[in-house]
Amino acid sequence: MGGNCIGKVFKVTTFGESHGPAIGAVVEGCPSGIELGPGDFAEAMARRRPSGRPSDTPRREQDKVEILSGVFEGRTTGAPITLVISNQDVDSRPYELLKELFRPGHGDYTYFKKYHHFDFRGGGRYSARETAARVAAGVIADKILSPLGVSVLSYTLELGGIRAKKFQFETIEKDKLRCPDPNASVEMEKRLQEIADKGDSVGGVAEIIISGCPSGLGEPVFDKLDADLAKAIFSVGTVKGIEIGAGFDSARMQGSQNNDPITPEGFRTNHAGGILAGISNGDQILIRTALKPIPSIKIKQDTIDRQGRPATIKLMGRYDICPLPRALPVLEAMVKIALADHYLRQKPYERRT
Amino acid sequence: MGGNCIGKVFKVTTFGESHGPAIGAVVEGCPSGIELGPGDFAEAMARRRPSGRPSDTPRREQDKVEILSGVFEGRTTGAPITLVISNQDVDSRPYELLKELFRPGHGDYTYFKKYHHFDFRGGGRYSARETAARVAAGVIADKILSPLGVSVLSYTLELGGIRAKKFQFETIEKDKLRCPDPNASVEMEKRLQEIADKGDSVGGVAEIIISGCPSGLGEPVFDKLDADLAKAIFSVGTVKGIEIGAGFDSARMQGSQNNDPITPEGFRTNHAGGILAGISNGDQILIRTALKPIPSIKIKQDTIDRQGRPATIKLMGRYDICPLPRALPVLEAMVKIALADHYLRQKPYERRT
Amino acid sequence: MGGNCIGKVFKVTTFGESHGPAIGAVVEGCPSGIELGPGDFAEAMARRRPSGRPSDTPRREQDKVEILSGVFEGRTTGAPITLVISNQDVDSRPYELLKELFRPGHGDYTYFKKYHHFDFRGGGRYSARETAARVAAGVIADKILSPLGVSVLSYTLELGGIRAKKFQFETIEKDKLRCPDPNASVEMEKRLQEIADKGDSVGGVAEIIISGCPSGLGEPVFDKLDADLAKAIFSVGTVKGIEIGAGFDSARMQGSQNNDPITPEGFRTNHAGGILAGISNGDQILIRTALKPIPSIKIKQDTIDRQGRPATIKLMGRYDICPLPRALPVLEAMVKIALADHYLRQKPYERRT
Amino acid sequence: MGGNCIGKVFKVTTFGESHGPAIGAVVEGCPSGIELGPGDFAEAMARRRPSGRPSDTPRREQDKVEILSGVFEGRTTGAPITLVISNQDVDSRPYELLKELFRPGHGDYTYFKKYHHFDFRGGGRYSARETAARVAAGVIADKILSPLGVSVLSYTLELGGIRAKKFQFETIEKDKLRCPDPNASVEMEKRLQEIADKGDSVGGVAEIIISGCPSGLGEPVFDKLDADLAKAIFSVGTVKGIEIGAGFDSARMQGSQNNDPITPEGFRTNHAGGILAGISNGDQILIRTALKPIPSIKIKQDTIDRQGRPATIKLMGRYDICPLPRALPVLEAMVKIALADHYLRQKPYERRT
Repeated sequence: MGGNCIGKVFKVTTFGESHGPAIGAVVEGCPSGIELGPGDFAEAMARRRPSGRPSDTPRREQDKVEILSGVFEGRTTGAPITLVISNQDVDSRPYELLKELFRPGHGDYTYFKKYHHFDFRGGGRYSARETAARVAAGVIADKILSPLGVSVLSYTLELGGIRAKKFQFETIEKDKLRCPDPNASVEMEKRLQEIADKGDSVGGVAEIIISGCPSGLGEPVFDKLDADLAKAIFSVGTVKGIEIGAGFDSARMQGSQNNDPITPEGFRTNHAGGILAGISNGDQILIRTALKPIPSIKIKQDTIDRQGRPATIKLMGRYDICPLPRALPVLEAMVKIALADHYLRQKPYERRT
Repeated sequence: MGGNCIGKVFKVTTFGESHGPAIGAVVEGCPSGIELGPGDFAEAMARRRPSGRPSDTPRREQDKVEILSGVFEGRTTGAPITLVISNQDVDSRPYELLKELFRPGHGDYTYFKKYHHFDFRGGGRYSARETAARVAAGVIADKILSPLGVSVLSYTLELGGIRAKKFQFETIEKDKLRCPDPNASVEMEKRLQEIADKGDSVGGVAEIIISGCPSGLGEPVFDKLDADLAKAIFSVGTVKGIEIGAGFDSARMQGSQNNDPITPEGFRTNHAGGILAGISNGDQILIRTALKPIPSIKIKQDTIDRQGRPATIKLMGRYDICPLPRALPVLEAMVKIALADHYLRQKPYERRT
Repeated sequence: MGGNCIGKVFKVTTFGESHGPAIGAVVEGCPSGIELGPGDFAEAMARRRPSGRPSDTPRREQDKVEILSGVFEGRTTGAPITLVISNQDVDSRPYELLKELFRPGHGDYTYFKKYHHFDFRGGGRYSARETAARVAAGVIADKILSPLGVSVLSYTLELGGIRAKKFQFETIEKDKLRCPDPNASVEMEKRLQEIADKGDSVGGVAEIIISGCPSGLGEPVFDKLDADLAKAIFSVGTVKGIEIGAGFDSARMQGSQNNDPITPEGFRTNHAGGILAGISNGDQILIRTALKPIPSIKIKQDTIDRQGRPATIKLMGRYDICPLPRALPVLEAMVKIALADHYLRQKPYERRT
Repeated sequence: MGGNCIGKVFKVTTFGESHGPAIGAVVEGCPSGIELGPGDFAEAMARRRPSGRPSDTPRREQDKVEILSGVFEGRTTGAPITLVISNQDVDSRPYELLKELFRPGHGDYTYFKKYHHFDFRGGGRYSARETAARVAAGVIADKILSPLGVSVLSYTLELGGIRAKKFQFETIEKDKLRCPDPNASVEMEKRLQEIADKGDSVGGVAEIIISGCPSGLGEPVFDKLDADLAKAIFSVGTVKGIEIGAGFDSARMQGSQNNDPITPEGFRTNHAGGILAGISNGDQILIRTALKPIPSIKIKQDTIDRQGRPATIKLMGRYDICPLPRALPVLEAMVKIALADHYLRQKPYERRT
């Protein structure tokens, strides 16, 4: 199996399975001299961790990040940083009964077709559990970006068909669903409860705003910044769509409307979403992404077994109901990893003291 | 400058500038034994070439592809295949007057910020001219895919706000705008003429259908097939959005609706768009992508010069008015390159005779 | 810092520092279905571990390999395999006194020049301790190669100027210095004791014989099998020279002597050392490599401190006296990693059951 | 076929076959702003070109380098630079008679085993003709290195068993065999003539001295500078051995002799050959490499045909008799490519004006 690594200079390799002993990441290319300790990961891991919202799985993981290498006397050395998160609440019994069946909407079928086996214990390698390692790696990316003034904000724009109409960015972090519109948030929560009661699940739309990104990140041909952001975001399992800047709306505009006029003070509008010809232009980078409903539902579905015989399946495990808001820190991490990589492609040996 | 290469086993490196002597591509990883000659490129190059539609630039290029290496006695040898397309209609005079100004919506500004220079002659490396080399490389990808039964169809779903409602796939190739709805096509053409008369430009939406793709292409973590398709498509300059399968609509569905039930005969629906957990499931792969209006317009726009002083710019060169339909063969080529790469990652040394 | 990874399909990334909490490796690209458990590593790790020979450091490490990922029910899954070896005997006190001085023959000076810091505790990342992770990864490479009939034998050909003259391969494993000539081995041991008594160190020459390697491994241009073997072997810190087949002797031969005649039964001679035009020819692959003396000696040496001021240094820590025989399992591991990579480049998805 | 590319930031991909229309290289990662024109290649190409020495093939190629991309107004732009050298003296008739036989010492046999075909016309992709593209790429590497004060000198240390004893570096360039010892050179030439008269060939030893290399190039683990130099040099077809610094002699020294004492003025000796722990130390980098005799000889040899039947072969084409001195510019080019890559890994976006 290939493809466990993302980035060219700031390279993140994740490892580990949902129900194995541990998951983690090796982060290469981090400059030396950056303060880093186990405590730095707590906040980001907590934001990804289920926390009793109706949307969240009841699986309980402490998600404590252990640093095995790359840090000496509290600072990065430039050597690979190995992060390990042990799996503690590993109960694979609910999966035992279903080990012959492919769960609809999951990778069981395709994984089996490709590798001739699949990990019935919650997906193994292709479980969302793997994303905890990405969030941990994102913390290191953030350590590179934040001194440059780059910050990444994300929120629930839409959930179960309900869309935020107000944008109170300052209350997002306190909002249960990380929605910038408190009224919409209340409605979303009601909707989630209805969905949960039916054993069903629901999708949503996330918006991501990158502020303070310097101009000049990205390459003009294949490694365009937007292309690498799209890949990073689509590498998150539930993503089904992405827009940069005006996105699909730009397809309906005319050039005279869509072009952002340039002034000595900067761009007058931002339909480009902060990227021109694959290179950041110094403006905010705006991304919207569509997340499909969690495929694990407690409703009977048609499927087949490993031998191709028809069957029905009804899942009874511990699942999220909506990928949002838990996917937000994962999306932020992927965005930060892509940005840090493009930043360090230009300055790979920069030392911070 | 990095990022001139895409793919891991089937690797395509493009080279060349809009107004330099030639553009081209080196294609590595093509299996040996495949029939290939200069004549194989004519059809695909012709589909990308401007052809007198109101949407097309009047720049005239013969786009003849010369094979410099990798073919012996009419068959590929497995060695790198070098394709060269000479630039013939290279008139950079219209650009001379504007050489101090950044064209809004183009990469001039960001390229200058990154590299401290830019190629005023039509964008140089970041010109759409570079995509001719991609189309040529796509012909080789197609030679790998078509014996497997994989075919890629693309068409203009929407242009200037007019959307196809009927889908007569058999007439697409004959339709001037490659629209599957003849009535919509007539309206689109009218719209294009209006836009042209104003000196403006317009965007559109393309739909891409991949049929016959075997299950098992893709990797479950970062190199998901959808992630690599998203990167390949976003590496085309005008792309601002992408959806796989139900795309943004899936964000509004419930799991019980969005999950595709599995039957012994295959998937009952295809909201997934042919990909689960980053791996193809054997169903059609469905992609929609939003293209922004061509940024080159003959209307006065605000901008700045290299010194940051305010200025106005009015372009007078030879431009397309809409990225569609000329972008379609480019999008198809990128899709084929990504698929061939994922196919050959599994069977890198397969020889065809 | 880059360059922590070797291989393209069978990829090994090592992490960890000499005196950090742990070292280890992430191994990507291992086929699924291979039996693997923690017990599989014991023998190889023991061969690398110091064992009371006069040539060995007294540092005591248990070198127990823990598998964090990539194995399920005793078999590899195809997912990345993470191997962790904790550092237990971590006493950095002997280094404290020397923390301002560059040890001659070590990487302290160059590391400091490059990264503006260095790890005075035994070299940190550039310590020979890192090679334990390579040996562990080599065990997995061996699991891929041995079913193909590929075996790798290595031995001490020369030590401290004493050269083996007889080649009793069957007693190598029992010989303290892994020398195929028991008489030479006795002399070598005497020499080592003399050297130890003076506080000095000594180098040697290793010979490596790869048997059963199928023809067809390697690529004809830059990724020649001999080029990748040379890189793999030179990536071991003490290596100063390498020969393939007749090596430097071939420079003194004529073509009619050096060419290996081809017969229906195989090659009549093996001056090529099993590789032609970068591709294995099915014959034994023969490698000789020169290892410099261990640079840590208990004799006063001239050096400078971080400020560039002259100083003298006399090391008092726990060191090997000769890189042989402990380097042999490391060299074998590197050879196996390179071979497994080239093998899997051809058959990346082969599943063993 | 993979492996046509070397380098990570300064990346060189070569293409082309011995008897195809052209060979060439795409060079990525070259900084912008460097003066470059077709005339810059003439000298290096001439040094590699056969020139009537008894050691040289009578094949006549003009080796004119054409620049297809990456240069604008006489300076590099940072975009990929494509270099094309057309093959003009392409006479494959001498090969026709031998198209069923494997030439001993050549890659025909291994290439056939791997790819199930081989290019009987002088080896096609694995011909020494490919190295002309490397020499051209090396000219660009030199443009990066020479402003830093880095220079690379190489010469014939030994040829046909005759070794240089005097080192008059200033006459090397004028010496027919690029030998620093005029007396040895005369003897070498006599030897070459004897060998030529017998239809045989001979090998030699090259020495390479890199001066002015700044400290800090290289990485401490797998991408050691010496490891990458060894790979670069072993990627030249005739190389069978390599030594850095004291090389095999260091295996016979004691640590107290081999360690280079450090003084405020630099290293007192240079047994390390300018590299410590994989990183350059600022001293001269010293390399010796063994080249086997040219395998093409006009003497009858035993071989087999494609069906494995015994046969004899006597070559009658146009061949070199000794890889030296023509291999020297190729070795220099490979060394420069590796150095430029390691230099630019640290400063990938440096612009020269």
